[in-house]
Amino acid sequence: MALAQSFIAVEPDSHFPLQNLPYGVFSSRDNAVRRIGVALGNQVVDLCALSNAGLLRGQRCQWHDCFRQASLNSFMALGRPEWREARAVLMRLLDKNEGRLRDDTILRQRAIVPMEEVTMHLPAEVGDYTDFYASREHATACGEMFRGHENALNPNWLSLPVAYHGRSSSVVVSGTPIRRPRGQVLGPGGPPASLQACSVLDYELEMGCLIGPGNELGEPVGVAEARDHMFGLVLLNDWSARDVQRWEMVPLGPFASKNFATSISPWVVTFEALEPFRCDAPKQDPEVLPYLREAGRHSYDIQLEAAIEAQGGGGGTVTRSNFRHLYWTLEQMVAHHTAGGCNLRPGDLLGTGTLSSAATGGAACLLEASRNGANPVALAPGVERTFLCDGDAVCLSAHCQGNGFRVGFGECVGRVMPARAGQ
Amino acid sequence: MALAQSFIAVEPDSHFPLQNLPYGVFSSRDNAVRRIGVALGNQVVDLCALSNAGLLRGQRCQWHDCFRQASLNSFMALGRPEWREARAVLMRLLDKNEGRLRDDTILRQRAIVPMEEVTMHLPAEVGDYTDFYASREHATACGEMFRGHENALNPNWLSLPVAYHGRSSSVVVSGTPIRRPRGQVLGPGGPPASLQACSVLDYELEMGCLIGPGNELGEPVGVAEARDHMFGLVLLNDWSARDVQRWEMVPLGPFASKNFATSISPWVVTFEALEPFRCDAPKQDPEVLPYLREAGRHSYDIQLEAAIEAQGGGGGTVTRSNFRHLYWTLEQMVAHHTAGGCNLRPGDLLGTGTLSSAATGGAACLLEASRNGANPVALAPGVERTFLCDGDAVCLSAHCQGNGFRVGFGECVGRVMPARAGQ
Ligand SMILES: [Ca+2]
Ligand SMILES: [Ca+2]
Ligand SMILES: [Mg+2]
Ligand SMILES: [Mg+2]
Ligand code: NI
Repeated sequence: MALAQSFIAVEPDSHFPLQNLPYGVFSSRDNAVRRIGVALGNQVVDLCALSNAGLLRGQRCQWHDCFRQASLNSFMALGRPEWREARAVLMRLLDKNEGRLRDDTILRQRAIVPMEEVTMHLPAEVGDYTDFYASREHATACGEMFRGHENALNPNWLSLPVAYHGRSSSVVVSGTPIRRPRGQVLGPGGPPASLQACSVLDYELEMGCLIGPGNELGEPVGVAEARDHMFGLVLLNDWSARDVQRWEMVPLGPFASKNFATSISPWVVTFEALEPFRCDAPKQDPEVLPYLREAGRHSYDIQLEAAIEAQGGGGGTVTRSNFRHLYWTLEQMVAHHTAGGCNLRPGDLLGTGTLSSAATGGAACLLEASRNGANPVALAPGVERTFLCDGDAVCLSAHCQGNGFRVGFGECVGRVMPARAGQ
Repeated sequence: MALAQSFIAVEPDSHFPLQNLPYGVFSSRDNAVRRIGVALGNQVVDLCALSNAGLLRGQRCQWHDCFRQASLNSFMALGRPEWREARAVLMRLLDKNEGRLRDDTILRQRAIVPMEEVTMHLPAEVGDYTDFYASREHATACGEMFRGHENALNPNWLSLPVAYHGRSSSVVVSGTPIRRPRGQVLGPGGPPASLQACSVLDYELEMGCLIGPGNELGEPVGVAEARDHMFGLVLLNDWSARDVQRWEMVPLGPFASKNFATSISPWVVTFEALEPFRCDAPKQDPEVLPYLREAGRHSYDIQLEAAIEAQGGGGGTVTRSNFRHLYWTLEQMVAHHTAGGCNLRPGDLLGTGTLSSAATGGAACLLEASRNGANPVALAPGVERTFLCDGDAVCLSAHCQGNGFRVGFGECVGRVMPARAGQ
């Protein structure tokens, strides 16, 4: 069967073919109102305009109204049957053989906006943001640096998906400049600490799962039902101030070292679009407890990359990894998160943790890639980094390679601005 | 000068005299709509009804519209000049010498609702909840139990107000039943861990500060301006599953051991009402860094109590403490929280941490009071506890004692329900 194609042109290496249709929230030059769209090639299809024009009709009655909102939370709350129908209707409407929108010049003018004319916003209001630590490669590498080879993994690491609560107010959309934070750090001579600009600023290449329907407080989500609560994935950069982190994190975990910014990509790729790229997750040994045990443990074959671009040019790729290396699955994260009764809400964000691979060049943050600053990483001839410099832009990207098409995530970019002047 | 009094009767030991006027969100038997009120004696004054009747007018134009909302977030966002005017207008309107409401029988019928007829709701939508660890007595007692006397305080504790991000979705209002969580715990024989009902469930007596106007991402709030960002205080119970906490918390801090529920009291006592009860905060030694240094370090003389009431009767007070013992001030918490650029939003919640006193009976959680279960605490003849039993209700209360009146917080109550059946 030939690949379905849209009447909107899509290059073969585009991240956004008809098979993807990721959701996002945008405004445009002509219209400052935030509204929901899908990406298709280099265009954004305005779902609010299509809904108003009466083109989004199906058996189920709720989803087309959600497309008139300024965030995806209401749509996320509906659940998979509604999402599936919305996707089917959109794929049909945008197909090259379907004339309703294709032949309506006036509506096309209104509802199809070139990507260079839009500003992207956060796709959802994030009620709570949780960051996991689910890559065995990353946890091992960090553990070896600070505790030695024998004690690399903490005793609980293979037993539960370790996580901490992050800061939701400072989750920002790709493109937002990242101010280098000031914070309390301990100098090499020991106490007293001082307040200064972070000198070891890092990125963490992660993915973020946006939650669909929530659960009631006190009602755990079983691992077998967890997928019904997962709407889609974005790229996530968990900016980290390593010096601040080292001084503050015992005993209650990272706080000011992480809460100054977390960037996510604007286009939410649904699990429907990711379905063709399911693959096996790594084997878990020892066997996990029953509440985390899955009949078929699935992951996704998503190629990941992190690049640093120095201001004024120069730079290159630091990290090449793949989502499939993740030891704990998203379903296990949801089951563990809710096992004690904690409620998730539509739009909540679960970060996977730094997504490293064991291969050379697979370290997904500079702490790991530079062995805590000991080995500078070469970006390009004459350009190397241990940690981030002012003016550096970190660009995360990801895609799944299909047969003749890609399902991609676009980019998650943030440029480092100099710290504010000190007191 | 005689104490101002209302035409609504207020008992001398009431928590809610005219001098308090705490804000809350309620619905009533006759009207399920959530709306804003103030507590006065045993009555709730419906500010939505007064606003609609045109009785809430001042020089400033925004605050009376906020009283038509279903949460206090908009009012909190306005800032102190608006709060002060609202308070002055309400104190005048409710004064026994002011006839406009007093003599309007029909409006009084509509706008003054007996407390026993109302249901209280969360006062604000909590965007982010942060829990500090700011009591030196508590941090020392916990440290001694787990690390011995010499290393009781972590090296960073006197240098910064330690905190972690908590879970905002599971912040619940007083009265909400608390389901004993299940979670991963390590048995006495060591690994493997198992999923079971928490066997050492605890309360933590804390207070919570609700944030007023927020700050922009990247723009720290100086310690001298921090007070302008603080709206009011509530009681807070940070329910804690100690066995889950012990197993999970290294290295990223508490997660499932805390995120199943946090209770707060429904009435937000403003800093205007607390003004007469300002007192000195404990001396800080060593001197703190400049960004945390305050010209006048102030605290509040707020008497705190935690009692356990067993199902079917029996029980008594476990904790007697005072807010004034807190080593770090609320202003310092706000300054530290935002020093790296983290943004606070109206309605955000900052927990103080377990608020212990050094006196006998001053331990503000059972972990500390029972020395981790070694010394059962006597509640009443024949009734003792190491940790919470199913059916126990924990009741936190607090008040400031004035000359002939009290400014009180009411209660923050939660009863422990048995855990869900296991798999
Ligand atoms: Ca992370
Ligand atoms: Ca606490
Ligand atoms: Mg972050
Ligand atoms: Mg809690
Ligand atoms: Ni409809």
